[in-house]
Amino acid sequence: MSLKGAVLFGQSGGPTSVINASAAGVFLTALKHEEITGVYGALHGIHGVINDNLIDIRQEDMKELELLKYTPAAALGSVRYKLRLHKDDPTDYYKILDTFKKHNIRYFFYCGGNDSMDTCHKISKFMKEVGYECRIIGIPKTIDNDLMCIDHTPGYGSAAKFIATTISEVILDAISYTKSRVTIIETMGRHTGWLAAASSLATINGLGPDLVYIPEIPFDVDNFIEDVARLYRENQRVIAVVSEGIVDENGNFVLEKSENVEVDHFGHVHLGGVGYRLANEVKRRLELQTRVMELNLMQRCAAHLTSKVDVDEAFTFGKKAIEQALKGVSDSMITLRRTRMNYKVEYDVIPLSEVANHERKLPREWMNERGNNVLPEFVDYALPLIKGENRLKFEKGLPRFAKLKKIKV
Amino acid sequence: MSLKGAVLFGQSGGPTSVINASAAGVFLTALKHEEITGVYGALHGIHGVINDNLIDIRQEDMKELELLKYTPAAALGSVRYKLRLHKDDPTDYYKILDTFKKHNIRYFFYCGGNDSMDTCHKISKFMKEVGYECRIIGIPKTIDNDLMCIDHTPGYGSAAKFIATTISEVILDAISYTKSRVTIIETMGRHTGWLAAASSLATINGLGPDLVYIPEIPFDVDNFIEDVARLYRENQRVIAVVSEGIVDENGNFVLEKSENVEVDHFGHVHLGGVGYRLANEVKRRLELQTRVMELNLMQRCAAHLTSKVDVDEAFTFGKKAIEQALKGVSDSMITLRRTRMNYKVEYDVIPLSEVANHERKLPREWMNERGNNVLPEFVDYALPLIKGENRLKFEKGLPRFAKLKKIKV
Repeated sequence: MSLKGAVLFGQSGGPTSVINASAAGVFLTALKHEEITGVYGALHGIHGVINDNLIDIRQEDMKELELLKYTPAAALGSVRYKLRLHKDDPTDYYKILDTFKKHNIRYFFYCGGNDSMDTCHKISKFMKEVGYECRIIGIPKTIDNDLMCIDHTPGYGSAAKFIATTISEVILDAISYTKSRVTIIETMGRHTGWLAAASSLATINGLGPDLVYIPEIPFDVDNFIEDVARLYRENQRVIAVVSEGIVDENGNFVLEKSENVEVDHFGHVHLGGVGYRLANEVKRRLELQTRVMELNLMQRCAAHLTSKVDVDEAFTFGKKAIEQALKGVSDSMITLRRTRMNYKVEYDVIPLSEVANHERKLPREWMNERGNNVLPEFVDYALPLIKGENRLKFEKGLPRFAKLKKIKV
Repeated sequence: MSLKGAVLFGQSGGPTSVINASAAGVFLTALKHEEITGVYGALHGIHGVINDNLIDIRQEDMKELELLKYTPAAALGSVRYKLRLHKDDPTDYYKILDTFKKHNIRYFFYCGGNDSMDTCHKISKFMKEVGYECRIIGIPKTIDNDLMCIDHTPGYGSAAKFIATTISEVILDAISYTKSRVTIIETMGRHTGWLAAASSLATINGLGPDLVYIPEIPFDVDNFIEDVARLYRENQRVIAVVSEGIVDENGNFVLEKSENVEVDHFGHVHLGGVGYRLANEVKRRLELQTRVMELNLMQRCAAHLTSKVDVDEAFTFGKKAIEQALKGVSDSMITLRRTRMNYKVEYDVIPLSEVANHERKLPREWMNERGNNVLPEFVDYALPLIKGENRLKFEKGLPRFAKLKKIKV
């Protein structure tokens, strides 16, 4: 099964706090193996591969490669680019082949979400067709946790930890005051509710939200207003968490096309998201004071508060990718199976064809009947993923992130 | 100078990450002194004093009082309440006197910003007038850093550390992409630019913002658009930080009354703040992609990322307040003088009359000539304040904050 040649690694899609931990896993493992003749990084993912824009990882300092484990965002640069079908336009594929041949790339690892697994699978099929021997493995990552055939994706645990911690802190802030208010907190999650649901992990300390709305369950503005009004009567204070992607029963984003002229207007210019639109509705219909918080980019790049479980797993994904490829595995994604709820996992490989382009939803049975909060089943699932803290290196009071030289080859 | 009696402590104004560290300093120090016959907390600040709503700190677990040091927001509850002048309405003052007499309160400590120092001073004058012997000391706190006669306020260092760290992380996220964009980040700071300026501390790692706008310098939308356009031409990417309180040369909040109908509209319903309004202007005039991030409540309650210097100082403020009061000091605020830029401080006391109701601005000479970024002088001043990290206690992956029993007396 031995195949001598170079390793190429690239990053794709929305960054996470731990995507670079997987890079560290790939690089530090690859550098130890003699049959690997070169270790390269593609700048801006598949773009870098197509345009032969590679850097030589062997010229980086080991210390900096180790710091990658705790450095947020995509250190090699990311990209959002969907390869066309080979039969429609083979140009990109032949450019990728050129790059592979030029540097004798025999191992290609691509770290990303759904689209990236699709990219891997397409390249893998093409290389087989043209008879270029190489091994291609996908390394999953996405804070959205929406990949199929995996217990959870690297990146999710850290995002969940940041969200749950922030909710705890914000709720302590909110209850400091005698003044009553409706606080609406908007999380990411265009199609799935995993991130919004993570806020409810704070309930283990009695600091969770009162209401949680997710894209999987059609959102009804009237029901929402009713929920808020009822809880406000009971507690004079409401904390509601909403996914950015909540939609009504016809699949339309909430209030974007309301008859309410004011709101119609905002929809067009994208002044803030659904959180602001809902707050406006609460003010208009219930005449209550509101406050809106968007967790925004912070939930995917807050490297200063990551889950140890998540960072360690992300690193191991990179390591396993190298090990499996050396054993001859290709056209596959590294995956994770949970063997004990709280908490043991084992790594495995799975054909890319089974993963690509599917989306995993939050199970309906983990939400309550009214669809406005999560049930303990979700907490049992997600709590082990946020465990443990990482000791970031700080210099002069600020995190010391990896600085790569990025020497082109 | 000995005065036997009970201690009462209250919290006021907007919470910070370290206001409870001062509470811990007061409580843990007071509990050690024999001449202090009781240690009480006022629920919701001066409201609790007026309405005799006190809790007995001696009944709390020592372990929980120690956790206060790392617990955000106001653990005793906060309040925004301005005492009327005694000559206009003495009702509140006599109620405060009743509470003091009932529990033999001889030491009153009030932790807050400008208004709270004013409250302390008014109560102090009243107690002298009616001949009730007691010692009253103000303990400063505010993330805004806008108090007079003090090098910096407890709370500012931690907010600054959170802001600078978050900016670093967000910039790493932004440069991951090839796609160009204008990112606008809005900080708190209604009247002063200390918080917006803190973002520039990240420049020590090359991850600071390109532009910083503060309320002290009149904001001109045309100049802003010009700055953004120029930097975008140079770098294809702009990161601008704005204080929520930036105003034009007439003191009006920016774009709230624009001729642009769209924006006029939003101004009314408060859909997002000045960040969104400026982003809209960038889209409209320059047709560039934008992203807006509001740091919102997080900057004042992110206890998971505080400055060790700040937490230790906040604790010491509480301790010094007790020590000074026992020595006979009253009608004063504890203050801090810097004796070495990088970095040594000494504590002192200062008459409340000198502090109350004044506001300290960011010096004009710490901003560049065009008024769109800070100079190294500011970095030299602020960098020592964000130094050091605190080891929060975590349980099950989430910070374990103090839980008080709050037993009423």
